[in-house]
Amino acid sequence: MCLSTLLNPASVAIFGASRNPEKIGGRPIRFMKEMGFAGAIYPINPQHEEVQGLTCYLNLDAVPEVPDAAIIAVPKDRVLEAIEACATRGVKVCVVMASGFSEAGAEGKAAEQKMLAIAARTGMRIVGPNSQGLANFHNGAILNFSTMFIEEPPKVGPVACISQSGAMSVVPYGMLRQRGIGVGHCHATGNDADVTVSELAAEVVLDPKVKLCILYMESLRDPKNLAIAAERARERGVPIIALKSGRSAHGKRAAASHTGAIATEDRVIDAFLERHGIWRAEGTEALVQAAEIYLQGWRPTGKRIAVVSNSGATCVLSADAIERYGMELAQFSPETEESIRQVLPDFAASKNPIDITAALLTDSGLFGKVLPRTGEDAEVDILMIGIPVSGKAYDFDRFAQDTADFIRTYGKPVVLAAPQRDVRAAFARHGIPTFETEDSAIRALAQFTDHLAMMQQAPGGAVTPAQTSVAGATLDEYASLDLIAAKGVAVPLRQICGTAQDAQAFLATCPNGIVLKASSAEVPHKSEHGLVRIGLKTPEDVARNFAEIEAKMGEMGVAFEGVLAAEMLASGRELVVGGYIDPVFGPVVIVGEGGVAVEAMPDNQLLLTPFSLSDIEAALTKLRIGPLFKGVRGARPLNAQAVFQAARSVAELLGEGAVLSVDINPLITTPDGATAADALVEIRQG
Amino acid sequence: MCLSTLLNPASVAIFGASRNPEKIGGRPIRFMKEMGFAGAIYPINPQHEEVQGLTCYLNLDAVPEVPDAAIIAVPKDRVLEAIEACATRGVKVCVVMASGFSEAGAEGKAAEQKMLAIAARTGMRIVGPNSQGLANFHNGAILNFSTMFIEEPPKVGPVACISQSGAMSVVPYGMLRQRGIGVGHCHATGNDADVTVSELAAEVVLDPKVKLCILYMESLRDPKNLAIAAERARERGVPIIALKSGRSAHGKRAAASHTGAIATEDRVIDAFLERHGIWRAEGTEALVQAAEIYLQGWRPTGKRIAVVSNSGATCVLSADAIERYGMELAQFSPETEESIRQVLPDFAASKNPIDITAALLTDSGLFGKVLPRTGEDAEVDILMIGIPVSGKAYDFDRFAQDTADFIRTYGKPVVLAAPQRDVRAAFARHGIPTFETEDSAIRALAQFTDHLAMMQQAPGGAVTPAQTSVAGATLDEYASLDLIAAKGVAVPLRQICGTAQDAQAFLATCPNGIVLKASSAEVPHKSEHGLVRIGLKTPEDVARNFAEIEAKMGEMGVAFEGVLAAEMLASGRELVVGGYIDPVFGPVVIVGEGGVAVEAMPDNQLLLTPFSLSDIEAALTKLRIGPLFKGVRGARPLNAQAVFQAARSVAELLGEGAVLSVDINPLITTPDGATAADALVEIRQG
Repeated sequence: MCLSTLLNPASVAIFGASRNPEKIGGRPIRFMKEMGFAGAIYPINPQHEEVQGLTCYLNLDAVPEVPDAAIIAVPKDRVLEAIEACATRGVKVCVVMASGFSEAGAEGKAAEQKMLAIAARTGMRIVGPNSQGLANFHNGAILNFSTMFIEEPPKVGPVACISQSGAMSVVPYGMLRQRGIGVGHCHATGNDADVTVSELAAEVVLDPKVKLCILYMESLRDPKNLAIAAERARERGVPIIALKSGRSAHGKRAAASHTGAIATEDRVIDAFLERHGIWRAEGTEALVQAAEIYLQGWRPTGKRIAVVSNSGATCVLSADAIERYGMELAQFSPETEESIRQVLPDFAASKNPIDITAALLTDSGLFGKVLPRTGEDAEVDILMIGIPVSGKAYDFDRFAQDTADFIRTYGKPVVLAAPQRDVRAAFARHGIPTFETEDSAIRALAQFTDHLAMMQQAPGGAVTPAQTSVAGATLDEYASLDLIAAKGVAVPLRQICGTAQDAQAFLATCPNGIVLKASSAEVPHKSEHGLVRIGLKTPEDVARNFAEIEAKMGEMGVAFEGVLAAEMLASGRELVVGGYIDPVFGPVVIVGEGGVAVEAMPDNQLLLTPFSLSDIEAALTKLRIGPLFKGVRGARPLNAQAVFQAARSVAELLGEGAVLSVDINPLITTPDGATAADALVEIRQG
Repeated sequence: MCLSTLLNPASVAIFGASRNPEKIGGRPIRFMKEMGFAGAIYPINPQHEEVQGLTCYLNLDAVPEVPDAAIIAVPKDRVLEAIEACATRGVKVCVVMASGFSEAGAEGKAAEQKMLAIAARTGMRIVGPNSQGLANFHNGAILNFSTMFIEEPPKVGPVACISQSGAMSVVPYGMLRQRGIGVGHCHATGNDADVTVSELAAEVVLDPKVKLCILYMESLRDPKNLAIAAERARERGVPIIALKSGRSAHGKRAAASHTGAIATEDRVIDAFLERHGIWRAEGTEALVQAAEIYLQGWRPTGKRIAVVSNSGATCVLSADAIERYGMELAQFSPETEESIRQVLPDFAASKNPIDITAALLTDSGLFGKVLPRTGEDAEVDILMIGIPVSGKAYDFDRFAQDTADFIRTYGKPVVLAAPQRDVRAAFARHGIPTFETEDSAIRALAQFTDHLAMMQQAPGGAVTPAQTSVAGATLDEYASLDLIAAKGVAVPLRQICGTAQDAQAFLATCPNGIVLKASSAEVPHKSEHGLVRIGLKTPEDVARNFAEIEAKMGEMGVAFEGVLAAEMLASGRELVVGGYIDPVFGPVVIVGEGGVAVEAMPDNQLLLTPFSLSDIEAALTKLRIGPLFKGVRGARPLNAQAVFQAARSVAELLGEGAVLSVDINPLITTPDGATAADALVEIRQG
């Protein structure tokens, strides 16, 4: 079934309908009546013949037609009975409000499974359980019991809020409504047992009236539909902002010796959202702080800001904020500076930021004379006006009018920063986004421009099917290196030596000397146990170190499976390239600084597959050691292509399905290439 | 003269007094009359006999007594004449409002100097020029022309705002007043030609009615008085929050090869403010965002927060915010959890964060039952209440009352996060700090607790006298190492060798081999030019490399002053320890990762002098490579004591006055000690 029925039902039945418009079973009826729902409403309650002026029915069978949708507002223990009735009669979708299902333990989980099974029989869809319900204000289909629609009366508008949590569906709604912004959709899906936030979002972003989509999720179990939602939204130019909570709860993956351990689940979510052009909000404020700007439909040409203020302090503070949030202070062309100089009094600043000074008091027209100069300069993408102090002597209504004219003429985004309410109100009357401080204005602009850039660059792509958790077995170093070598990663000459004599013979083939390591998959941190000996150049050294390793393994009670001898590699930077299969998002690849730094001083970047050379280059640039890939103090740059080759090999191994995780550490990287000095591969068992 | 006269003048004359209470010369008179100034007000204006109901005088001589203070509200070109009259008659302090002085160029600068010279004759003090004036609302001494006092009427209260900028004196004033917070002082000092923000702050924090002090500065030329202000404030427990703008303008010091180049002036300001327990606000919001919390006078026992909410989403988001802002989620004692379990319904969460759930709807008393449990638990320092949704069905007046009772009983800080205005208003009526979101609540709590901790730990101390810019000369490596060795830093055995034979003879004394380097102060980055050769172990190697260095120097046109031969050092981590003299703040010492990383991948910390071993340990902990000083993967920790020794030596050299900058890079650091492998010292010339 297409979810559009859910947003646009022709008729709605309410199980547990209440005559009291303040009760859960009464509020949806009240809301639908108040908000002009044009379809049929069928209250069901055996105790009443009439509910809120509507005919009330004994049961679903008594309803004169098959309703498109049903609200199940009965207590938990009567939900299954209602679901059964709906499925039998052919209802298309049910919104289940009762809680006490999978969120409440095993018994509830079983009931929820039963509910899904009943619905699956006929293809009926379930929203919830534990759902506050859906609200489409455009057509009055308010299958929702939130009291917030009483506290902050709805105004139809371009924002859609979709959330698992009931509270977090109406919190952004309420914050936007308090600021006068209209909200067209406000949906809370609850347990996401069937219909998820992601699937619903994929439907909502198709609504041509939606211009901004706000999501709140506590789990992200349905990335496939979120990718679809994001793709549809990008096509329509609708920004999606998502608050995925629980960042603090996502600790690192269970400690293990391999690379997987350094990637937290939460960073995978970051990478997924970025890939699909969805802005990740850190908290509730970031969900709504830039809404006024988003809703203008502006498409700025860049992030270079011109600042115009009547205060020098605001000019300096704006420049600070522009740097802090990664925006740029526009550099005016000489013509612009000259033309501004001609307009302003001598002591005012004609460079960006422009300090008009208190001269504005004596010439209210100064403002309108300066603005067009910044509008005509191609070096200016965005304008910020700062009016920290105003009073009777300032004609800020005229400033607001001049600003509105500027926007109409030049189409460049403009925001106002002014701590006084009446100044903000004067600009807001012209539809100009207003903020209390330059800091909040620039922060919102930065989110807006960075988000648009992210949407433009988003590669998107289908989600690789997830894989259930399976048992793995770790290969020893020799076999691990073999596996990655087969995928094209350079590895050292090496040999498993059962005796010191074997190792001495191997030394003869390695002019730069050899390394000896205990060969065992049982000991992960070999160097910490003295089981790695490097730079051995003479047969005597080899014999002595061989004997010491063998003895040490005996002490540790580790079975002696021989010693791995490998040629000494030329020195280079130690990188790590690794990866693992995330159960939801599929293959995850990590590149970063290697060696002991991996755990104690992490510096790595995470990528979802597939990725290109330029994706790897971008990831390397974000590393602290990124400058080494550009060349530092005259040194040749490290070879990013070789790192890409290693990363692609890891992605291939993971993508083929037999490998669960790979850890190449260190990958000795030089300007000429990269060689895996050690590797650990975990394969699927059985 | 003590500045208290400025804040509490017995009488005030106004040059340029105006009958129009909307004019600059009229507003101060209007404000003083409206706000109950008890002293005498003497308008001076030859054109009037009466101004705003007061006798107006022809000139200062006509005034019947010598006024304590004078407001100079005449145009720029008549200021000096008025200053002259004030000095002659014995006025103690003048507030000069006209602009066009040092901020406007050389001519204005000269006039400003003249003004200071006139005042200096009699010890008269000057506020300004270019000053909006001072306002002490406690006694109505409003020597100030800001229109903001009309837009946002004053309410006497515990906050003091002191600023150079007029706008930034009244912006925090206005933001606080809009939130109902009283402001007792609002001063704008303008050009700080004589009285600075810092000196005024040192006086204002002595006012027992001041509980929070907010500063805005564009330059910090008077650190001595700011240190005094901070010390007095700490003694009285008054937090100072400072916004020092222009962070973005402070680029790195002029590029040079030595360590000084990595320290920006702005980081020195950070270090200075932290040393004196002053919180540095990043922007205007941070000046005022935690004001309600500061003003409670709370002294929390730590930063462990308990969260109580009626929404699971708020619980998760609060935990995220607690981690984001470096606070801690309190771990309840088993007794607390058990007692909460007894109060709450089965499905509610008794662990922190506590989700009371919608059960609150049916039992409004739940809230008051849960709170004392968190109050009695010694593991809880602070309580955050989150009410994301409320409506008629919730008795939030009762919740607010229960919260107020909690605060009275347990004395623990409590904040409310609630997006709905009426919920916030209910709590605010009980004086409880309220915020729109959990994010803003936790951010403010973090500022508050971190600031109190910073104040407690602040070593303070007098400011080392600044030093004017002088010419310097760079010593060569040999001489530089000599100088730091004399201060107790370990250095390698070394010798300047005029010939390869000398170097070969030196090799014989160094069992681990030697390094050869061009000996020249002219070439800073020797290794980039192939002028450093390491690990030379045979006489042949030494001879060949010696000849190559000599030839290379010839090619580069650098005078051959011999080759520095030094013993090879055991390997270790490359650190940098350096320092320079800041013209305002005195000696600055830097410790961090050394080698090529210094410039391309900076990782260093800056300290003002004096500092202790524990200060250095704290600085090392903040480095990315900090874990190496704790020991990583079984390795022994690097020797922090040896780094401290090197840093102290640098501080001593800088403190003695003959040395302008020192750069020890690399300082080869091991678990056992640290040896300077290279150094560059710049000495005062002439």
